[in-house]
Parts: sequence; structure tokens; C-alpha cells
Amino acid sequence: MADLDKPQNGTIKTESDLDARRDGHDHSVHPDLTTLEVHRGKHQGDKYVRVIRSSALRKVAPGILRASEAVSRPSGKIGRWYTQFKAFLVGKPLPTEAEKGERLNKIRALAVLSSDAISSSAYATEEILLVVILAGTIGLFYSVPIAIGIAALLAIVAFSYRQTVHAYPQGGGAYNVARENLGTPFGLVAAAALLVGYIMTVAVSVAAGTAAITSAIQELYPYNMEISVGFVALITMINLRGVKESGTIFAVPTYLFIFGLAAVIILGAIRILLGDPPVEPRLESSAQHGPMESLSIFLLLRGFAAGTVAMTGTEAIANGVPVFKPPESKNAATTLAWMSFILAFFFVGLTAVAFHYGVTPHETETVISQVARIILPNELLYGFFQVTTMLILILAANTSFFGFPRLAYVLANDGFMPHQLKFRGDRLVFTTGIAMLGALSILLIIAFGGSTHALIPLYAVGVFISFTLSQAGMVRHWWKTREPGWRKSMVINAIGALLTALVVAVVGVAKFALGAWIVIVVIPILVFMFYQIHRHYARVTEQLALASDNGTALAPLRQIVIVPIGDLNKASLRALSFARSIAKDPIAVRIFYEAPEADEFRAEWARWGEPRGVQLVFLESPYRSFNEPLLAYIDAIHRQDAGAFVTVVLPEFIPAHWWEHFLHNQTALRLKTSLLFRKNTVVIDVPYHLDK
Amino acid sequence: MADLDKPQNGTIKTESDLDARRDGHDHSVHPDLTTLEVHRGKHQGDKYVRVIRSSALRKVAPGILRASEAVSRPSGKIGRWYTQFKAFLVGKPLPTEAEKGERLNKIRALAVLSSDAISSSAYATEEILLVVILAGTIGLFYSVPIAIGIAALLAIVAFSYRQTVHAYPQGGGAYNVARENLGTPFGLVAAAALLVGYIMTVAVSVAAGTAAITSAIQELYPYNMEISVGFVALITMINLRGVKESGTIFAVPTYLFIFGLAAVIILGAIRILLGDPPVEPRLESSAQHGPMESLSIFLLLRGFAAGTVAMTGTEAIANGVPVFKPPESKNAATTLAWMSFILAFFFVGLTAVAFHYGVTPHETETVISQVARIILPNELLYGFFQVTTMLILILAANTSFFGFPRLAYVLANDGFMPHQLKFRGDRLVFTTGIAMLGALSILLIIAFGGSTHALIPLYAVGVFISFTLSQAGMVRHWWKTREPGWRKSMVINAIGALLTALVVAVVGVAKFALGAWIVIVVIPILVFMFYQIHRHYARVTEQLALASDNGTALAPLRQIVIVPIGDLNKASLRALSFARSIAKDPIAVRIFYEAPEADEFRAEWARWGEPRGVQLVFLESPYRSFNEPLLAYIDAIHRQDAGAFVTVVLPEFIPAHWWEHFLHNQTALRLKTSLLFRKNTVVIDVPYHLDK
Repeated sequence: MADLDKPQNGTIKTESDLDARRDGHDHSVHPDLTTLEVHRGKHQGDKYVRVIRSSALRKVAPGILRASEAVSRPSGKIGRWYTQFKAFLVGKPLPTEAEKGERLNKIRALAVLSSDAISSSAYATEEILLVVILAGTIGLFYSVPIAIGIAALLAIVAFSYRQTVHAYPQGGGAYNVARENLGTPFGLVAAAALLVGYIMTVAVSVAAGTAAITSAIQELYPYNMEISVGFVALITMINLRGVKESGTIFAVPTYLFIFGLAAVIILGAIRILLGDPPVEPRLESSAQHGPMESLSIFLLLRGFAAGTVAMTGTEAIANGVPVFKPPESKNAATTLAWMSFILAFFFVGLTAVAFHYGVTPHETETVISQVARIILPNELLYGFFQVTTMLILILAANTSFFGFPRLAYVLANDGFMPHQLKFRGDRLVFTTGIAMLGALSILLIIAFGGSTHALIPLYAVGVFISFTLSQAGMVRHWWKTREPGWRKSMVINAIGALLTALVVAVVGVAKFALGAWIVIVVIPILVFMFYQIHRHYARVTEQLALASDNGTALAPLRQIVIVPIGDLNKASLRALSFARSIAKDPIAVRIFYEAPEADEFRAEWARWGEPRGVQLVFLESPYRSFNEPLLAYIDAIHRQDAGAFVTVVLPEFIPAHWWEHFLHNQTALRLKTSLLFRKNTVVIDVPYHLDK
Repeated sequence: MADLDKPQNGTIKTESDLDARRDGHDHSVHPDLTTLEVHRGKHQGDKYVRVIRSSALRKVAPGILRASEAVSRPSGKIGRWYTQFKAFLVGKPLPTEAEKGERLNKIRALAVLSSDAISSSAYATEEILLVVILAGTIGLFYSVPIAIGIAALLAIVAFSYRQTVHAYPQGGGAYNVARENLGTPFGLVAAAALLVGYIMTVAVSVAAGTAAITSAIQELYPYNMEISVGFVALITMINLRGVKESGTIFAVPTYLFIFGLAAVIILGAIRILLGDPPVEPRLESSAQHGPMESLSIFLLLRGFAAGTVAMTGTEAIANGVPVFKPPESKNAATTLAWMSFILAFFFVGLTAVAFHYGVTPHETETVISQVARIILPNELLYGFFQVTTMLILILAANTSFFGFPRLAYVLANDGFMPHQLKFRGDRLVFTTGIAMLGALSILLIIAFGGSTHALIPLYAVGVFISFTLSQAGMVRHWWKTREPGWRKSMVINAIGALLTALVVAVVGVAKFALGAWIVIVVIPILVFMFYQIHRHYARVTEQLALASDNGTALAPLRQIVIVPIGDLNKASLRALSFARSIAKDPIAVRIFYEAPEADEFRAEWARWGEPRGVQLVFLESPYRSFNEPLLAYIDAIHRQDAGAFVTVVLPEFIPAHWWEHFLHNQTALRLKTSLLFRKNTVVIDVPYHLDK
């Protein structure tokens, strides 16, 4: 009886042999993998049947298989280590189904989408002061009016964007709005400006966040750049884990910063109202400054241009409407209003407090850090505030990690960026876009030596170009749709468009020599690239498209099969067998350098029975080259029947160890490379694997 | 009538259509390229026939074609430039037939094969002096007896080698002699020692040649290393041109040096005999030295060990017997005798003259340069002598460029080195071996900063190991053959073997810490490599060999054809056509990430008429990976019929511009890489070339 348990002879049969016969197929294997194994016992007639299933692939419907997570599990040791390491860094793979539920409520959305805008208050005041101080201490007086002016501009732009949020609930990014209303070229300019802006945001925010730490711990100041690079790498990794986890990570520090800075400003206001006099500046370089430049309108405009950096990030909420929980537009508009209010309050308040206490920029300590030192009652609170400043700034970069890959995805979908950017990795995030953003901003930080001030002039131009195009698009939108109340909406957006265009002009002129020209050069280059890429994809689609009259059957295909061989051995005989299995009369080509070789080969050929159906041709190469005569031969043969395919079958043996490759001429590889760009030519390697 | 001249419709026919029918082939193309073009005139019945020939390939016999030089002419602009540049550097390609006549007469052979040995006299004396000076001025006295001792040793070794020349007219290299008489392991040790010696010769000779120039023009001293590297590159290039031209290039400077140094020594001897007193040393460091070490037997042995470097290169003639004009052995023996005499005379003579004039080593000027300055009557002659010294030293490296590639060829032929070393380039020289020697000696020069003294300790050990093994092999040879006079010959070779073994021991101990240990480590590593390579080739041959009972027909081959496809377009339909042309029922596999994709594809598939004979399988990949599910599927299918070949047909489209590759996922490439090591799996790319 025990004999019965052990199968004596197993044969594998397909469950649907009959089906297969019926539909005309007569194959030895069954494509949908459902097979039966028939075992016979020792006694005649004993038999049992077992259904065999693949552990990695499961049949879910006729002709449809589903891969399990197991297929991705590597079998080698190194592969397994790599998989575990990757899972540790970015988490385990997620199936596509896991996507639902990745929406954000207002509290979370404010943290994720506003950290960029709100965190600007940490460096915007300093940028104004750096300009107005050039006119001496008297210049400082103008910092507060400039800040109020920018806050007013912010209010108008935010109001303008609220209209966009309602009009474009599917996400009203500048690219979408400008392309739809102003045409593709404007859309692409906006997209280029936005992409540049995203990269800048990462670089500037992280550099400023690092400055918050090095202001408190001045020993770290020389390592500014290295610290920044490390932070970008960290954020990139967090983003590769996926969006929801980022939301949680971001909420806490954003609110800590909001409460911290609000406390500093309110405490400062109370002290000022109670008659607190300006403190003696504690740092040597904040001593009274003499004028280096006369106070002029142009200087004030430059101060204004520098301060507009506070507004960067305002567009993030309008772009991200679809990630809000329903009702999306309403929630987004509310969040946008809150964001603008907080930002305006912080920016004006901080500038006013800084002015009252006579704080001026210093190389190794930021303005916000100096203000906090003055206002906060003890070192502990100051240190805590610096940490939250650093956190919000570094995490503000996340707004870009949210926006950049999504915009890249939209552009790739429209054929303006490489298709790879459409791919979502096993954590359901746009892996390529995230990695690209991380890499580019690290390059930018290194190129500018990790300095915030060097980066900021490049920053505002791109952002305001996208503001302008987005608002202008909205003007056109209202004109076209004429929805109820369109006149009022159009006026609001028109004012926004005009003011932001004015800012572009002012910043472009004021900061041109300081780096704004880079952005003005990069944007057209990007737009040119978008068009080139688009042209390529369009041509590919057009050239590959099937003609509509091109019906049923596959076009018949004529093949001329050529097998270059060296010695007669198992590898070359296998290649000949393969050639014979795909063609009736393959041509074997033997290249030889000297006559005796050919004679020897002919003898061998005869000895092994002149493989039937194979035509043997000898090709003498007096200059001992291999590739060139063969290519000439292929050309000559192909000329005789230009409509046919030339199929070159190459015997190739694969050594068991990598180093053994060096012991063989890479003839096959070189031949393949030469044939790669030859039209209607197919190269087939028939491998012969060697044992160890 | 004019109409007749213009062919109206050309059809290409093969000349031997009938032959083809007769032998059972019915192909559209004729493999041996002889085709007739039949043109018809306007009037019915008008027709004429033109024989078409390929310009690159000519039919020389039935089934045999010969490539002309034209096949190697590249068609692209860059390719043509490269070819012209290469022809300028190394000369035009030579056909294999051009080989005959590349033999050397005695005059040329002395120049080519002895420059290494004779040029040693330019630095050997200095090496002795560098050791004995450690015992102070008194030590210098021993330099002459040491030189005489080495000359005596040279006489014995040369005498010993004359026997080899006669016994091995086919070239009696240490490898051959030791392998044949002592067994393969000893042969390989000798081969390793020789290869190391060849590389050392290039490095040492070129470094010493550069020192000859920087002794005369001391401003060049800091660029020693760079000059040496340049010279090696130059010699490598000359050798890539071919052997005969090297012979001519080498003859002139070798003889100039021989006459020059002979003149210096004879002139010196005459002046000494006429009672010329030692001159006052001209260079500051050749002031009288105090002893730094006591004069001991060990010091004298170290001096002897250092001086043996004079003998390096003695073996070259014995290795090169076949390049002599007939009678080869006699000519080689005569040349060997002359070479030894000249070398011994130079070495002892120069040491004696240097001793008489109290010349001592100096950092920036060589001993031979100091002697020449003293003896030669004017600056012009001195300068000329320095140039010839430099030339012979630099060209001495050529002896290695002659020996190394030939030994590598022999080793490759025996399966101990990579087969690539057997390949002779279009100038009929062993391109790979020459390039390898050039590269390794440049590395060595850079590693030792271009200093002769640092390199020399490594040098003698390897050379003397090969001397010893070669002589010992000869002893065994006489014992085995017992030819007339074998006793005498055996005694001579035994003495040679013993003395050279003694030198190996002395040099190995005396110079161990100075670098001799490197050679002692490298030789076993090389021998181990030889054996690994040999094992690999043996296994390959064994595994590929055809079984003797394996007769006539090619083994039939079962194929399972799988076509992974994305969209339905011209590229994928072409791949399906190809698959259908090689198999009756290929399986098309469509990977999808989300259900709608599959539905869309099924609709498209139906729309294009469900390509006949193709079985469609859908593979769902919930984790959005492509490779892994496909590999799992291939495994599962293959398991059903393990004896079959799996052929994966991949549609691939080739963009017109290189940068466009970045716009497409490299799916095909990654899949091919994954399948490379899978047994019985063939990957076929069916290319679709896109237009610009």
C-alpha cells in the first residue's frame, strides 16, 4: 500500500486539452498554467490526479493570471538583503488597491500644503533688511511698510487663488489653468517655472532650516552645506515611503512653529506696548551701520522684490485641491484663507518686532533667531523655538516633494516629460519624480555652497511667473464661461495678474545680475525640451500606429537566416538546430584567416554528417577581421531580397563565472552592436550554459 | 532605341537557380552572391542580363568568398577619421600573406635581440657602486673584482645557453625547456618569471634611458616619470607597426652605442696607461664618503647581487632562434657569443675606468654620464654619447616587446593565458600582448615614480629564476637524449644552473626587503592564474565537444514562444509576425496593473482581428512590477515542458536619436539581463527602427 503513495511515473497533462484541440491549438504547454499531474501506482490501474498551481501566479479568470508579492522576492542572498534593506528604508510594497483613503483633512492639509508658505516668514524679513540696510540705519525704517505692502499683495493673490480653487476642483495648477485658457505654450512656461520653483523651494527651505540650527549652535556653521544635503536625502527617503505617513510627520512641527512664532510676536507686541526700549545689540556686526547707498525708490523696490519671497508656496493649496476630503473646493478655500492670514500676520509682525529692537542681518545668525533670543525669556525656550523653525523649514521642502512629482506626472501624461515619470513604485508614489527632485536640489545646494542668500534671488522670479500665468488664465476663464458673477471674479483675477506681473518685472530687473537671469535662461530651455519630447512621442505614436484598413491576419514575414560559426561543437550545433527550427535553409558562414583552417573545417563538417538543410559558405578574411566581412556578407545577401528579414543566429556560450568572460573574444557582443541599427535585422543569441 | 538602354523592370535571379533546385534548396537568395540581374526593354522580348558582384566580397571558389580591404573601410565620417588616424599611427593593414620574409640577419638580430643585454652596461656598474660605497671609499676598490666575477658568470651562462640554441632550434625559451624537461609546473614558474622580467625590462630600461637625458639636461630631472611614460607609449606604437620596421629602427642606435661606449672605454684605458691621474670630482656629492657600514662578505654579496642586473636579457637570443635567417641555430649561437663578449667587455671596462677616476653615484647624474664627461674631449661628443645611451636603453625595451607577446601567444596556445593573446591584428603583430605589456610597464613606472634604483631590485630575481629553470631543464634534456657529447653538455648546463640558482638565493635574500618579495609573491599568483585559465578552457572544450556517436542530423528542437506586449502597434505586431513565422502557436503575454487596461487591450485585440494562431494571456501585476511576474510566468510555462526551449520575442523600437532612449522605459534591456543566465532560453529582439 505504501507504494501507492509514491508516484512511480508522473506525466503532466493540461486540464483543458479538449478545449485546446477545439480552438485549433495543439500545444505541449498550457498558457494559463492550470495543469494536472497524473501519477500511477505500482499496481496496474492505480492512478491519481493532482492539480498543480504555481505559487507565484494564480488564475483569476480564464486567460487571466495574477502575480502575488512572492514573484518579486529575489532568490539570491544579495538580492534578499537588498529587498530587506529597501523595505527598511522606504517600507514594504503596496498593491494598487491600497490607494483609496489617502485623502487629507483640513488640519493635515494645512500642515502638508502650507508649510512652504508659512515657513517663508523665517527668512523673508531678513531678505528685506539685507537690502534696506544698504541705506544705513535710516533704511530700516522702511522695512515695516514694505512688509505691509507685501502682505496686501498676498491678500490679493490669495483671494485670486480662491477663485481658482472653486473653478478647478480637479486641481488648478498654473500649468492646467494657463494651458486651458491661454494655450499650450503659456501652460508650458508656467510648468517650467513651477518645476524650477519646486527645486528652489527644496534648496532654499533646507538651507534656511540648516541656518536655524547653525544660528543656535555656531560651531556647526562651517558644515552648513553637508547638513543641508543630509536633510534633503532624509526628506527624499520619507517621501519614497508615501504621502499619508508624510502628512502625520508634518503636522506636528508645523503647528509647533505656528504656536511658537505667534507667541514670539504677541509677546514682543505686549513688551513694546508696555514701553520696552530697544535692547543693546548683542552681536558685534549689528552695530550701527553707516549708509553704503543712498535711499532711493529703486532701493525700496529692491527691498520689496527681496521680500516677495515670503509669498512663495501660496499656490500649493490651489494645486492640491483633489487631496482634500470632500467637499474639496470648500475645504481648500478655507485652508487657503487661514494660511494667508497666518503668513501675513507672521511676516508683518516679525518685521515690526525686529524693527523695534533694531535687529540687523548677521552672517552667522539669522534675524528670526536674533528676535527670538531677545523676546523669549530663557535659553530653553529659545532653543526649542529654533528646533521648530528648523523642522518647519526642512519639512517645508515636502510641499515640493508633493507638487513636483504630480506636475511631472501630468506633464508626462501629456507627453511633455519622459514616460518614466508616470510610473508609480511599489509604495504607490511617483518614485522617479521624487528621486529626480531630491537629486536636483542636492546639486543646487552644492553649486551654491549651501547659502540661503545666494539661492533666494533665483527663487521668486519663477514662482511669480507661474502666479501671473495662472491669474491671467483665470481672467480668460471668466471671459469664456461667463458664469454668474463672472465680472467681479474677472476683476479680482485681473488685479492679481497685473500685480504679480509687476513683481516679476521688479524682481527680474532688481535681481537680474544676482542670479535671476539663470531662471530666465532655464525656463525657455525647459520649454524647448518639453516640445522636443512631445514631438518625439508624437512621432513614435504616429509611426507605430496601425493603419485603420490593416485587418485581421499578421503580415507574413520572409526570413533569411545566417549562422556565423567558429568551431563545430555543441554550442554551434545547437545554434544550427535553432536556425533549422525557424528556417528551412539557413546559411552557415565560416570565417577563416588562412586556407588550412577552411580545409580542417570542411573535414569536420563532413565528419559530422554535413548538417542537413544547412548551406555552408566560407568567407576568407585576409586582414584577420571578423565583423567587417560578415557585415559585408549580410549586406550582399540582403540586397538580393531587400524585403526579407535577415536573422543572424549566434552561438554563444555563457561561462559559469563572471571572470571567465575575459577569456573569450567578445565577438558576439561586437557583432550585435554593429547590427543594432541595421534595419530589418534580428539577432538571436542561442546560449549554451557551461557548468562549473 | 534609347529606351532599350534604360532597364524598365529589373528582377534579380541567381545564376545557379538550377543547381539550387537540384541539391534540394529552394531559397530566394544565393549564398555565394553570384547573381544575375535581368532587365527588360520597352519592346516585348528585349532583355539583357548583367552579372552583379559585391565590391567587398569576391567569389574565389564555389562556396568560398574573399573579403577585400574595402570591407573594413567605415562608412561614417568619424569612422573614416579613426581609420586614417590609426593608419598614420601604426600603418596600413597587412594581409596574412605578407608574413614571409620577416626574418632577421645577424646584424639586425644583434640589434633587436641584444639591445636589452648590452644596454645593461649603462646602469649595472652604478648599481654595484651604490652598494659598495656604503663601506666608504675603500668599498669602491671591490667594484672591479665584482664586475669580473659577474662577467665570468655571464660567460658560463652564455656558454650554457649556446647549447640550448642548438638543442631547441624552434626557440628555446625557459618556458619550453623547463616544461618539456621538468614538467608543466616548472615551465609555468619559468613563464611567470619571464613575463614579470619582460615588464621589468621595459620599465627599468626606459627609466634608465630617461636618466641618461636628465643627466645631461638636469632641468628635465623633475619630469623623469612623465618622460618615461611617453617613451613607453612611443615604443608600444612602434611595435604595433610590426617587427621588421622595428629591426631597422633599432639597428642604428644600438651600433652607435656599441661604438660610442667602446670608444669611451678604449680612450679611458689609453689615458690610464699613459698615466692620467684621477680628476677632481666635479659634483658636490661625489666628495669623499665616510663609511656608513662596515665592509663585510654580506655587503660584497649584495654588491654582486646588484651587479647581476647586467646579465638580464641574455636569454633573448635563445628564445628567438626562429627569427634568424637559416641556418638559424648557427647564426643564433654566433650572435650570442658576440653579444656576451661585448657585454662583458663593456661592463668590466666601464667599472674599471669609473674606479680609476673615482666616480661615485650621484642623485641627478648617472655614473656612465660622469665617466663620459671625464673621458670625452668635448661637450659635443659627450652630448652625442648621452643621446645614443638614451636611445639604446629606450629601445632595449623593445626586446621585451618582441619576447612578451610571443611568450603570451605560446601560453595562450597551450591554454594558460586568454585566447585573445593569440590574435594578430591587421599589422600581423600580437596586438593584445603588445598593448598589455605597454600598459603594465607604464603602471609600474608610475607606481615607482620613474626611479631606476627602486625598480632594479625587483628585476634580477625573476630573470635569474628563469635562467635557473632553463639550465636545469637542459641538464634533464641531455640526460634523457644522451646525444653524442651529452656528458660534457650536461656538466656545462649543470654549472650554469647551480650558479644562477645561487644568484637567485643571494639576490632574493639581499634584496628581499627592497622589493624582491613582490616578485616572489607575484610569480605564484601568476602560476595559479595560469592553472585556473587552463582549467576553464579544458572544461569548455570538454563540455562543448561533440560525442563521437552523435551523427548526421541536427537534434530536433522544441520551442515555446512567448511574446510580452504592451500596446498593439506596428512594433508589437511585427514581433507577433516574427513569432508566428518561427512557431505555430506563440503565446502573447499582456501584463497589466489595473483592470481597465486589460479590458481596453482586449477590445483593441478584437478590433485588430485577434491575430490568428496567437494565444493571449493576461498577467495582472498588483505591485506594478514588470520583470518579476513575467519571469515567474516563464518559469511556470517552462516547468510544463522542461525539455523545450523557451524563446522570448521582444518588440523593441530603436529611436533615431540616442537621447530618445531616455524617453522610454528600458524594459526590454532589463528583461534580457534577467534572462541571460536562464538555461535553454533564447531572447529575440525584433527591432522597429523609427524614422527621424
